[in-house]
Amino acid sequence: MYIGIDLGGTNIAAGVVDEKGNILATDSTPTEKERDFTEIVADMAEIAKKVTRKAGLATADIKGVGIGCPGTVDNKNGMVVYANNLKMEHSPVAAEFKKHWDIPVSLINDADAAAFGEFKMTAPDADSFVFMTLGTGVGGGVVIDGKLMRGCNGAGGELGHFCIEVDGKPCTCGARGCLESYASVTALIEQTKEKMAACPDSNMHDWVKKKGKISGRTAFECAKQGDAAAIEVRDRYIHYVAVGVNSLINIFQPKIFAIGGGISREGDTLLDPIKAFVKKNNYNKYMNETELRIATLFNDAGIIGAAFAAMTKQ
Amino acid sequence: MYIGIDLGGTNIAAGVVDEKGNILATDSTPTEKERDFTEIVADMAEIAKKVTRKAGLATADIKGVGIGCPGTVDNKNGMVVYANNLKMEHSPVAAEFKKHWDIPVSLINDADAAAFGEFKMTAPDADSFVFMTLGTGVGGGVVIDGKLMRGCNGAGGELGHFCIEVDGKPCTCGARGCLESYASVTALIEQTKEKMAACPDSNMHDWVKKKGKISGRTAFECAKQGDAAAIEVRDRYIHYVAVGVNSLINIFQPKIFAIGGGISREGDTLLDPIKAFVKKNNYNKYMNETELRIATLFNDAGIIGAAFAAMTKQ
Repeated sequence: MYIGIDLGGTNIAAGVVDEKGNILATDSTPTEKERDFTEIVADMAEIAKKVTRKAGLATADIKGVGIGCPGTVDNKNGMVVYANNLKMEHSPVAAEFKKHWDIPVSLINDADAAAFGEFKMTAPDADSFVFMTLGTGVGGGVVIDGKLMRGCNGAGGELGHFCIEVDGKPCTCGARGCLESYASVTALIEQTKEKMAACPDSNMHDWVKKKGKISGRTAFECAKQGDAAAIEVRDRYIHYVAVGVNSLINIFQPKIFAIGGGISREGDTLLDPIKAFVKKNNYNKYMNETELRIATLFNDAGIIGAAFAAMTKQ
Repeated sequence: MYIGIDLGGTNIAAGVVDEKGNILATDSTPTEKERDFTEIVADMAEIAKKVTRKAGLATADIKGVGIGCPGTVDNKNGMVVYANNLKMEHSPVAAEFKKHWDIPVSLINDADAAAFGEFKMTAPDADSFVFMTLGTGVGGGVVIDGKLMRGCNGAGGELGHFCIEVDGKPCTCGARGCLESYASVTALIEQTKEKMAACPDSNMHDWVKKKGKISGRTAFECAKQGDAAAIEVRDRYIHYVAVGVNSLINIFQPKIFAIGGGISREGDTLLDPIKAFVKKNNYNKYMNETELRIATLFNDAGIIGAAFAAMTKQ
């Protein structure tokens, strides 16, 4: 048995995971991200022990703990080098965890954890697997021959920061024109706001009044009701995602390409136009084609992937 | 001893290569690309035997032959699935070669061969290595943990066909806005032509009159003499290359990133501004950085890489 921890900006989620990837018990607690990292790590150790009890196990039954963190991790040295939104910079998270529970600890980037979980549970035989997640940002991970592609420094497999528009929109990373600036849910919300400002008659205004705020669902839901402005926003957004997916397929030609993140719950509304775009624009017109699919584990992928990282010492 | 063959649109080059990557003898013969593939393969076998004799060896001394081909190869089945500019489509090149010389034959994409040769000779200890070549097109190859990244179908590692400009210039591959449409030498020549048409006073006109035609060197050479229009062309072209390099570094975070192809002979004129751009725009600001360099093997990389492909059964 292993424990997977998904450290987010809002919540710390933890689960006991068996060797096959089944989750036996889970729990979560608020991150309270303003705190010093030592306090957050203390809470991680506490919730890890709590889920162990919840699963009816003793601490001796647990062989390792995997922790998925936003940002850049240095697993060799057990450090979170930098974590977006958290007060972690060169923080010795593994050593700190061991003060509370002396057990092997693996650190892994959160998007890599989600990618690895999705890979292990849905495509373990694929020789190459790309996972892209559309959320506040665009993240992802790449698995080649069963191993996460982490580059020379653990920061490889960053799929949201290649340029799709030379000198385009400023990105949070400091560069311009990154995929993330066009294909994240944050970008979709901006695109929705811009269109609403230009189209005062759009039904999107009513939708937002009812729901209280603009979200990534505004354009998708109003488009389903036939609102022309919403259809434009949705289709343009999907075009950006498709351009990103096609680019990554040309680079990796993976056996399977899975799209995750909240917006992936739109299912075929999102997937079908991407498939059509890739069919037309993929560089490879002669060999087996990549299978494009929606990811299936949703929020559990991070916990399962972090546990598998501990299991396989990735 | 192994033989590496670099099958190009103009010439077939072959060399005898020892286990350390030293070339013992080389030769070349025109491809005459309009011919049936069986005739081209017959010439490949003949030149392979010729370089063997030139190296003072017997055919029994040669353990295998590697053939680098433009386009998509299916090494498992010994087929060239599709080769740009050559009359090869699902052509059983390995079986055809063995009719002339019964020896193990490995097929490899030509850019992959160049990447693998450069990797083996200049960076064999790098856990991750990206090679990008700027020529008629933009090609490349990626080596991870000593193995070429070939995707699920052998067509992986295609670095010229990710989008850097949504809905941008039409690319030869059928998509729009690919890096190749902005960063290949073909694109540079187009960019040079456009600027010359707009700037009748540019020294580039004199240069072209002297040299007989516009080439990838026109803008670089006239820029060195201070021609303002040429400087603009050169700097914009390098900007496109830098955007591509930075994107690929964000995706792979390789230990080493090498730039090859004819234009790479410009050396630091090309490399320094790319380094500055990557320093500023790289997503990774906390970990070890990729070492950017100009490739060193030039034309030999294809022969050496093809021979290594045969040696290591890539």
